[in-house]
Amino acid sequence: MKKISVLGSTGSIGTQTLDVVAKHSDHFQIEGLAAGTNTALLLDQVRQFKPRKVSVGSRELAEQIKTEVPEGTEVFYGDQGLIEVAAGTDAEMVVTAVMGSLGLPSTLAAIEAGKTIGLANKETLVTAGHLVTALAAKKGVKLLPIDSEHSAIFQCLNGESRKDLAGITLTASGGSFRDRTREELKHVTVEDALKHPNWSMGAKITIDSATMVNKGLEVIEAHWLFGLPYEQINVLLHPESIIHSFVEFKDTSIIAQLGNPDMRVPIQYALTYPERWESPSQRLSLAEVGRLNFREMDFERFPCLRLAYDCGKMGGTATTAFNAANEVAVARFLRREISFLQIEDIIERVLDQHHNISEPELAEIEACDKRTRETAAKL
Amino acid sequence: MKKISVLGSTGSIGTQTLDVVAKHSDHFQIEGLAAGTNTALLLDQVRQFKPRKVSVGSRELAEQIKTEVPEGTEVFYGDQGLIEVAAGTDAEMVVTAVMGSLGLPSTLAAIEAGKTIGLANKETLVTAGHLVTALAAKKGVKLLPIDSEHSAIFQCLNGESRKDLAGITLTASGGSFRDRTREELKHVTVEDALKHPNWSMGAKITIDSATMVNKGLEVIEAHWLFGLPYEQINVLLHPESIIHSFVEFKDTSIIAQLGNPDMRVPIQYALTYPERWESPSQRLSLAEVGRLNFREMDFERFPCLRLAYDCGKMGGTATTAFNAANEVAVARFLRREISFLQIEDIIERVLDQHHNISEPELAEIEACDKRTRETAAKL
Repeated sequence: MKKISVLGSTGSIGTQTLDVVAKHSDHFQIEGLAAGTNTALLLDQVRQFKPRKVSVGSRELAEQIKTEVPEGTEVFYGDQGLIEVAAGTDAEMVVTAVMGSLGLPSTLAAIEAGKTIGLANKETLVTAGHLVTALAAKKGVKLLPIDSEHSAIFQCLNGESRKDLAGITLTASGGSFRDRTREELKHVTVEDALKHPNWSMGAKITIDSATMVNKGLEVIEAHWLFGLPYEQINVLLHPESIIHSFVEFKDTSIIAQLGNPDMRVPIQYALTYPERWESPSQRLSLAEVGRLNFREMDFERFPCLRLAYDCGKMGGTATTAFNAANEVAVARFLRREISFLQIEDIIERVLDQHHNISEPELAEIEACDKRTRETAAKL
Repeated sequence: MKKISVLGSTGSIGTQTLDVVAKHSDHFQIEGLAAGTNTALLLDQVRQFKPRKVSVGSRELAEQIKTEVPEGTEVFYGDQGLIEVAAGTDAEMVVTAVMGSLGLPSTLAAIEAGKTIGLANKETLVTAGHLVTALAAKKGVKLLPIDSEHSAIFQCLNGESRKDLAGITLTASGGSFRDRTREELKHVTVEDALKHPNWSMGAKITIDSATMVNKGLEVIEAHWLFGLPYEQINVLLHPESIIHSFVEFKDTSIIAQLGNPDMRVPIQYALTYPERWESPSQRLSLAEVGRLNFREMDFERFPCLRLAYDCGKMGGTATTAFNAANEVAVARFLRREISFLQIEDIIERVLDQHHNISEPELAEIEACDKRTRETAAKL
């Protein structure tokens, strides 16, 4: 039995992780679950998977569910609760699927405790890639990507030598608005933005797909995960999301990973790596798909992607500022406070005011994150 | 220096192999070259690469070139000459690129001598897969595929476990006549058939692409090379020949190898395996290609492919008969003795008369080959 904890168990990746665990219940055991506010779903999960430790967002929510969890399950809450579920169980693997920069301290705690990381929280590497990769190297801990693009790259590198690599290409569907001009983007609504053509995901990441911020975060994540300079990381528009990403080698040979858009495949691969098990996902028929399309990425049309590369190359706290500004701006858009195009305006203006700190400590990252959020909330 | 011999050095694969060798002349040394009748080109190659042993098709040709080869190069001829170049040098690797069933005895001799095989001669595995793979296993000799499809599969299997494999798919461009109906095929000419849309290859293999016999031979070859039942080997029409082939795993994940159609890539990969070196080939831009198309293979439209699967599943000498009948029929078509559609008629009629021998010895294979050729020449 492989023992697993899931941080962010009630979100999109969290629930799909538990689907995979349930499908292979004779091989996996859930040690800990952490959620935010969706206690109804968390309680269902607790009854089904019987974890030793659970955590919720606040003390009040913890008090509420304490009487309802089965005997043998301890209840925690808040930042410390998240760390308890991440590092305080017998789990050998921790899936980090909490949203936003909230995921960083618990991921560091899990690495410190020597646990293999199933990494679904982009911000961990985006804001603190230098700290996380250094600690993982020191502790000999594997960072297994769960994002479909990074899982694809990771799979394509199987059995290959890094020195033979020429570059990697992350594919991008283009999101909900890929066929709209910038003029047409002026008046799009939250509802329009939430209609992603291929993937069923949470609201925040769906907006991030439409702005291409999501791909920008993935580029930065890939930089840290695969130890590649930004010049070797490319993005290609591929509306069908069938080729999930690919690797090019020095001999011009390209190795690509393909499949239907179904997050359970990369999730399961991280859980079973280096093995591959039967999956509940639907097999891909290229004959049925019929046609795959590709277009150059347009950095004018998607300025947030250009900003992400700029911040990545700058390093330091620039990527933290990029990410924090975006989180606030997306939240404001979802609350209908600002228009869609103001998301990128806010990010750009925040970055104009940003004073970069190289090789920041955790406290400096957190201070930058806080300061940036305050600025972004007011713009 | 890696020492290499090339059987069939003046053909399409042979000359491209020497292109790759010349490009990396500080890493490769040619020990032996064998050709058929193109002595002018062979002499050029001998002057450039200075092999220790060369062989030509006949005693007369050997006598002709003897005075022209530089000192230190021995000249041989015929079947024995081919074996001398295959097994009688210090080469650690032998590229077997002679056409047709002629390649079998020399390939077996090279394996017997413990040399790594760069396998470009399909008929070796098609006619004697059971003997060749058994001998290679016994001698601990690697069979490295040079065909673009098999090289693709081989690359996609890097670092993966065979037990996790669900199946492989060979892509097929459809050849010169992929968009013609069977009615339209009745009156096509030799010139029409030789216009392959993607690959620049020899005449015989170009015709084999148009009849889909080539893909049938590849299916049989894949069966032996990768040890897979025919039920796990699929063929998909992919007109652009950009995805060279792919592997599907149990978790529904597909790993594919892509590139521009350029045989120097799989040739070089076999020569440098497991490393990948810089290649003179043009890098693939999927944005420039723009679109990849896929269609189910139509076994009614391409009956030779169905026949190949049937023969493969039957095993024994059936695949030898299939191959020999096709070689004769294609030669007759190229001599304008028969029409294009009569190629498949002849194969089908030969197979109707064939008495299958299971697990044939080499002599039985050769007898079947000879007998089939006689029959096919008269139909």
